[in-house]
Amino acid sequence: MNDFFLYKGPGIPDELFIRGEVPMTREEIRVISLAKARLGPGQVVWDVGSGTGSIAVEAALLAPGGQVWAVERSAGGCRLIRENCSRFDVPEVRVVQGEAPGALADLPRPDRVIVGGSGGKLREILDLIREKMLPGGRLVINAVTLETLTGTLDFLRAGCQCEIVQVAVSKSLQLGSSRVMKPYHPVYIISAWGWGDDVGG
Amino acid sequence: MNDFFLYKGPGIPDELFIRGEVPMTREEIRVISLAKARLGPGQVVWDVGSGTGSIAVEAALLAPGGQVWAVERSAGGCRLIRENCSRFDVPEVRVVQGEAPGALADLPRPDRVIVGGSGGKLREILDLIREKMLPGGRLVINAVTLETLTGTLDFLRAGCQCEIVQVAVSKSLQLGSSRVMKPYHPVYIISAWGWGDDVGG
Amino acid sequence: MNDFFLYKGPGIPDELFIRGEVPMTREEIRVISLAKARLGPGQVVWDVGSGTGSIAVEAALLAPGGQVWAVERSAGGCRLIRENCSRFDVPEVRVVQGEAPGALADLPRPDRVIVGGSGGKLREILDLIREKMLPGGRLVINAVTLETLTGTLDFLRAGCQCEIVQVAVSKSLQLGSSRVMKPYHPVYIISAWGWGDDVGG
Amino acid sequence: MNDFFLYKGPGIPDELFIRGEVPMTREEIRVISLAKARLGPGQVVWDVGSGTGSIAVEAALLAPGGQVWAVERSAGGCRLIRENCSRFDVPEVRVVQGEAPGALADLPRPDRVIVGGSGGKLREILDLIREKMLPGGRLVINAVTLETLTGTLDFLRAGCQCEIVQVAVSKSLQLGSSRVMKPYHPVYIISAWGWGDDVGG
Repeated sequence: MNDFFLYKGPGIPDELFIRGEVPMTREEIRVISLAKARLGPGQVVWDVGSGTGSIAVEAALLAPGGQVWAVERSAGGCRLIRENCSRFDVPEVRVVQGEAPGALADLPRPDRVIVGGSGGKLREILDLIREKMLPGGRLVINAVTLETLTGTLDFLRAGCQCEIVQVAVSKSLQLGSSRVMKPYHPVYIISAWGWGDDVGG
Repeated sequence: MNDFFLYKGPGIPDELFIRGEVPMTREEIRVISLAKARLGPGQVVWDVGSGTGSIAVEAALLAPGGQVWAVERSAGGCRLIRENCSRFDVPEVRVVQGEAPGALADLPRPDRVIVGGSGGKLREILDLIREKMLPGGRLVINAVTLETLTGTLDFLRAGCQCEIVQVAVSKSLQLGSSRVMKPYHPVYIISAWGWGDDVGG
Repeated sequence: MNDFFLYKGPGIPDELFIRGEVPMTREEIRVISLAKARLGPGQVVWDVGSGTGSIAVEAALLAPGGQVWAVERSAGGCRLIRENCSRFDVPEVRVVQGEAPGALADLPRPDRVIVGGSGGKLREILDLIREKMLPGGRLVINAVTLETLTGTLDFLRAGCQCEIVQVAVSKSLQLGSSRVMKPYHPVYIISAWGWGDDVGG
Repeated sequence: MNDFFLYKGPGIPDELFIRGEVPMTREEIRVISLAKARLGPGQVVWDVGSGTGSIAVEAALLAPGGQVWAVERSAGGCRLIRENCSRFDVPEVRVVQGEAPGALADLPRPDRVIVGGSGGKLREILDLIREKMLPGGRLVINAVTLETLTGTLDFLRAGCQCEIVQVAVSKSLQLGSSRVMKPYHPVYIISAWGWGDDVGG
């Protein structure tokens, strides 16, 4: 039983989500990304490139009374997100099928944005996020590819504050009588805030 | 203002704690360790080697209605823990000055234990924790030294389930016009559960 | 042509070896391990758990006029080692099919030993190596599993000098228009020297 | 004695170099960088941002009969390089005091270039290297800062082949009765080759 009760705290174990073939932000990375977003009650949160919805589910649990917008281009992904939201009982997640940045244009302006995937339109997405972000907002980007890293660093030149951490996780895997430490892809977790709204004031 | 409001969610930024000279579990490691502990309402939590109390504070926020016992041998550390508990308004943390395992012997039996430091008595501490742990309990150990890693692996042979992750974090640091990625000490986060109570049943 | 000329310097690229299905020490790890062994002319070198022979080949290139003993239990591995030695023209490698420590007992005493695999008999192998090692000798162990790490640390308590490095390598991999950094298993490279022969004297 | 004999093989231990206050490429990174450069007899090698000369010394040992040009802007650094070359008996290293790219313009065209530091002029340096590189040449860049990483990735778009590895090393450090694994700065080692000369032919 121990492992299979529905833990709903921060850092929900990966195996509790319904996954299919969709890529997923690993629990260790997810819990750091959510911490960097500094979520709280009543916030409007965008989860861009939502995948299985694991970020959206946890964001909803950390932003009670808020709205979480899970944006995902694939129909299969959207179905998974809905199943996971139902499993974790977070009806406040709204699923939007479509491609960013187009699919973001009509959403309510966000307090928090987490970008897990960009479908090759990173710069357009980041520009739109900066334009729409509410004062005091925070953006968190999980960069797995060098292209997302460099594209984000390039975007960050435009006058904001930021923090960049790289996180490399490996996890024990039993092989016969030995355990190897299986490595996950290292991820850059980039947080940005302070676009103009709190400068010079 | 942005950075200095008192964020009280999971993964509180390091700089929001009062620190003195006491070593502290970094926010990225702390938030993973707390996730692995799977905290919840009403739990009895031991924080062994509490340091600044950063783990105890967050555990209290994640286990509402529970009890968090922060065990720390130094008087200065205990003072810091109290100051941080007051700052984050978590009166349910009880500070115990003393050395483990002796200082643990009379505490209420725990649902969750997080070990950050062992003062050279790791094996005695782990044996006592196993003896006292309530059914369904979970133990999380942050191992920074090779001695804590090997001592914990040795302890784990005695029939329980476990997960081991190693986490290496580096953080951007501005040096003139460049940013280097300053590395923190890599940490093994070891979770253990299932001592007898849920086997064979 | 660029990549396929037969580079014979330290850190021979992985793809220049004939590999089959046999596991192989990656070039980045191999070149560090060989550096830690501090090879030189005329040395007797044991390569224990030789696999494809990549360590043996490079050791032979770095120890001209010496003898390299490649010990490997599988017949297929031994065939690969011979093919690689022929490809890189290092006839001074002698291939020994057999299991350590038994297969090591009758070899000439070594100046240098590199252990890549132990087939579950790590302690017996390390004890024999210590017994046979010539004065001034150096031992290098590549530990991929936690069991090899802890077994080696346990062995090292017996009065010698040592250095332990952990090396985590990831390598760019093109995926469509992006590059991810594919991680390899992190490896502990443990060097030991100074058993009695150069203490107190 | 063991540690202090003058080991002259690949991956010379850091402590054998005379260092002063000058930053130095660590032995584990250095030996990989040199392997990626695939050095050989008779080559012309540029070591740009030579620091203590540790790369230049080892390059000279790996390219017998060649020329190694160590370019360093500080007078103190140049003095150290000369001392280290004298210690390791590699008179074929020629020290050039000056700033790249200017200081590179009149050197003989290179077969191999290793860039350890760029003094803020990375792009100009890389453009000049590409212009001067002999057919079949290889360039290796050690990037410690995000700026060097992104600048190099930007440069690499211009039609060549490349390999990117990130290497994170930590080394055991005795603290009282425990050993922590002290991490070094993670480094990207970027190799590039194949500018036009061997394409389409």
